[in-house]
Amino acid sequence: MRHLIEPKDLSNAEMLRLIETGQRMVTNPGAYHGVAKGKILASLFFEPSTRTKFSFDSAMLRLGGEIIGFADADTSSAKKGESLADTIRVMSFYSDLIVMRHPKEGAPLLASKYSEVPVINAGDGGHNHPTQTLTDLITISQFKGTLENHCIAFVGDLKYGRTVHSLIKTMATFNSKKFILVSPDELKLPDFLLKFLRENHPEIEIKEAHYLEDVIHEADIVYMTRIQKERFFNEADYIKLKDSFLLDREKMKQAKEDAIVMHPLPRVNEISYDIDEDPRSVYFEQSKLGVYIRMALICKMLEVGDYATR
Amino acid sequence: MRHLIEPKDLSNAEMLRLIETGQRMVTNPGAYHGVAKGKILASLFFEPSTRTKFSFDSAMLRLGGEIIGFADADTSSAKKGESLADTIRVMSFYSDLIVMRHPKEGAPLLASKYSEVPVINAGDGGHNHPTQTLTDLITISQFKGTLENHCIAFVGDLKYGRTVHSLIKTMATFNSKKFILVSPDELKLPDFLLKFLRENHPEIEIKEAHYLEDVIHEADIVYMTRIQKERFFNEADYIKLKDSFLLDREKMKQAKEDAIVMHPLPRVNEISYDIDEDPRSVYFEQSKLGVYIRMALICKMLEVGDYATR
Amino acid sequence: MRHLIEPKDLSNAEMLRLIETGQRMVTNPGAYHGVAKGKILASLFFEPSTRTKFSFDSAMLRLGGEIIGFADADTSSAKKGESLADTIRVMSFYSDLIVMRHPKEGAPLLASKYSEVPVINAGDGGHNHPTQTLTDLITISQFKGTLENHCIAFVGDLKYGRTVHSLIKTMATFNSKKFILVSPDELKLPDFLLKFLRENHPEIEIKEAHYLEDVIHEADIVYMTRIQKERFFNEADYIKLKDSFLLDREKMKQAKEDAIVMHPLPRVNEISYDIDEDPRSVYFEQSKLGVYIRMALICKMLEVGDYATR
Repeated sequence: MRHLIEPKDLSNAEMLRLIETGQRMVTNPGAYHGVAKGKILASLFFEPSTRTKFSFDSAMLRLGGEIIGFADADTSSAKKGESLADTIRVMSFYSDLIVMRHPKEGAPLLASKYSEVPVINAGDGGHNHPTQTLTDLITISQFKGTLENHCIAFVGDLKYGRTVHSLIKTMATFNSKKFILVSPDELKLPDFLLKFLRENHPEIEIKEAHYLEDVIHEADIVYMTRIQKERFFNEADYIKLKDSFLLDREKMKQAKEDAIVMHPLPRVNEISYDIDEDPRSVYFEQSKLGVYIRMALICKMLEVGDYATR
Repeated sequence: MRHLIEPKDLSNAEMLRLIETGQRMVTNPGAYHGVAKGKILASLFFEPSTRTKFSFDSAMLRLGGEIIGFADADTSSAKKGESLADTIRVMSFYSDLIVMRHPKEGAPLLASKYSEVPVINAGDGGHNHPTQTLTDLITISQFKGTLENHCIAFVGDLKYGRTVHSLIKTMATFNSKKFILVSPDELKLPDFLLKFLRENHPEIEIKEAHYLEDVIHEADIVYMTRIQKERFFNEADYIKLKDSFLLDREKMKQAKEDAIVMHPLPRVNEISYDIDEDPRSVYFEQSKLGVYIRMALICKMLEVGDYATR
Repeated sequence: MRHLIEPKDLSNAEMLRLIETGQRMVTNPGAYHGVAKGKILASLFFEPSTRTKFSFDSAMLRLGGEIIGFADADTSSAKKGESLADTIRVMSFYSDLIVMRHPKEGAPLLASKYSEVPVINAGDGGHNHPTQTLTDLITISQFKGTLENHCIAFVGDLKYGRTVHSLIKTMATFNSKKFILVSPDELKLPDFLLKFLRENHPEIEIKEAHYLEDVIHEADIVYMTRIQKERFFNEADYIKLKDSFLLDREKMKQAKEDAIVMHPLPRVNEISYDIDEDPRSVYFEQSKLGVYIRMALICKMLEVGDYATR
């Protein structure tokens, strides 16, 4: 039985096949309705998340499956002092697949040891969020034609942003050309990750920058993230820097004609609404593709549809 | 693409066709199971409402469709500071139809500008609640045979009650004979609405009254509403008046043999339990008909069943 | 129309038929998919309960039915002051079957008077929880081959534990050989129940004990329950006694080779994790069987599948 706890639980070949399946589903969604008929997804959100939860729910329903679960821990037995191991074990009797988000790092890994059905990590603390990475990959593939050979600017909170860490590590294995790391000093990419890149992927050029306007013209992909005010050491720094991390019409003028702008959403202030209609802004399409890649993943985990073993 | 934000988004002809479809569904519910197969309703309740939510959920499931969504805003991304526009836009990628209730007036209208799928307003603050109006219409049609030529007493809180405002404006367009407005001074129908009626529908007789017992004998339809204690300026007024707005067995003795008593529910104190079994009390049937008219509406918005375009 | 409010609403013959149907579903779950197609279960949890709720949800979905409802009272109309009678009456218009848990004893009985569809009590305060009893029965039947002639040790909180009271009364009617009641003085079986057993079932041997280690060797079935610290009069008593009610590897050495250990779950401290893999520990299987017996019960209440009347 396979689980998906972190991106590297999938080989690159498996990721490419998921993307391919997801893209087939974009083209012909009707062909997949019914492939998960009779299957139940337990959607266990110990921490709320509209987007990820409904993206999975929608994916399962479009495949003809059903859903049980909760949107926050308050309605779960955890309140009665039950261990996570017991909760998961029992939920696995009621379902064919578990998707879980949990505020504690490592909770999905623990869960996978006790579950009788496959477990998909839908985010554990600041740790892993592999289906966001898959969503990012299918988006890059869809809009740039390939995952390889891109110059990618990662912008904003590179210190705490789990989606950025996962994506950087994964894209490094797909022959990326250059990574531009744009962040204030307080929110720089952690040293261990920089070191990891330099040791394992010396062929990738790495550039650090403080101002998006200085580097945006180089990027094939601009990957924006939320900057939370609380992350700054003082208000003055925040006010000084925040505009530099706001993507607006002015900065878009300097971006490449065929660049794409991505964002895991929800956004707060970091992308100006006036570039929503710019064809290079693909963050909404990214969100939409998230359903299709999750449909593909569910098929893989349940071994149905393109992944049926018989 | 059509949205339903306020009752007048529908022409009278469209309302009559919805009622007709709803009535066919009452007679033969099985014939409609499956017409919404493969479709997903996003049921977004930013403010709780048992009755409206479950009425829609039940309607969608009886048509063979599926549901995603939330029953209160706490589990939604709004908490992370996301704009309503973004939340709706993304939810519209996950679904084929959005039903939303929101505490802020105008929120569903805003939502309709960003959604990629039709939006139905299930109540926005004290503003509009068009599917309650449709429920009222199908009930009148079912029990009185026609929407036209009735004397209707509206009783209780006529100032803040949104369902009453919508119903008055709509029934005015269906050749009503007489409106009797029964309320304490503090809760009278707003002047702008009175003025609207007098200017646009001078043919309708309008009568104001303080005591239900004085006028109940004239009414073909008695439309009751909740009176909230907090609406009164002082406790003494409330105590003095509340009995006058309580519908009980004594008052029912003076009502017409073929009158009907309606209430949008939930009731608190305004209808005595001892008239629940009176055949003229149709508020529970009204609640039941609410599912059928919503089934008809969902078919219209999704263009399936009787509304299929092919 | 039948309701299930307390275990004795079912005759022994009906219970045995439910167990038989449940066991057929264990063997051949696929055969039952679709029998509840087009039916809606209203799952009304006025008090949260992960396990019972999801067990019912999963049962209904596996039969091909659909679910509406809430996981806690906060999102229900009860907040607006609506009576339980009205809430239930309206929910019964939206569904074909109601499953409800409520903190107040007697609430499901009241509900059954107003519902237009069958009501199943999923737990009311410290009162009744008939589907837990059915779950216990199918587990005993599955692992011991018969419900008759067993020596059963009930361990822990015998005073407040509703599941224990229901099970004792029910097993008394299935020719039990011996009941061993193991509890601290503060949590002894209530006198009225002891008296009931002695008067109505004098053939059953009853033994009371303070220490599980003294009696475990006699039991065919060890039925564990949660002991809540707050139930004790003082901390010293709790510390002194709690180990005696902890089932661990040491005590299991004295248990019969073919004994089974049951627990309604969730457990907190009363069963050591190191006996989870002991083949005599069947509490997880018990939890799993709870879905099948509920599938059988839903079929009975809806008169579908093996209980179809045509």
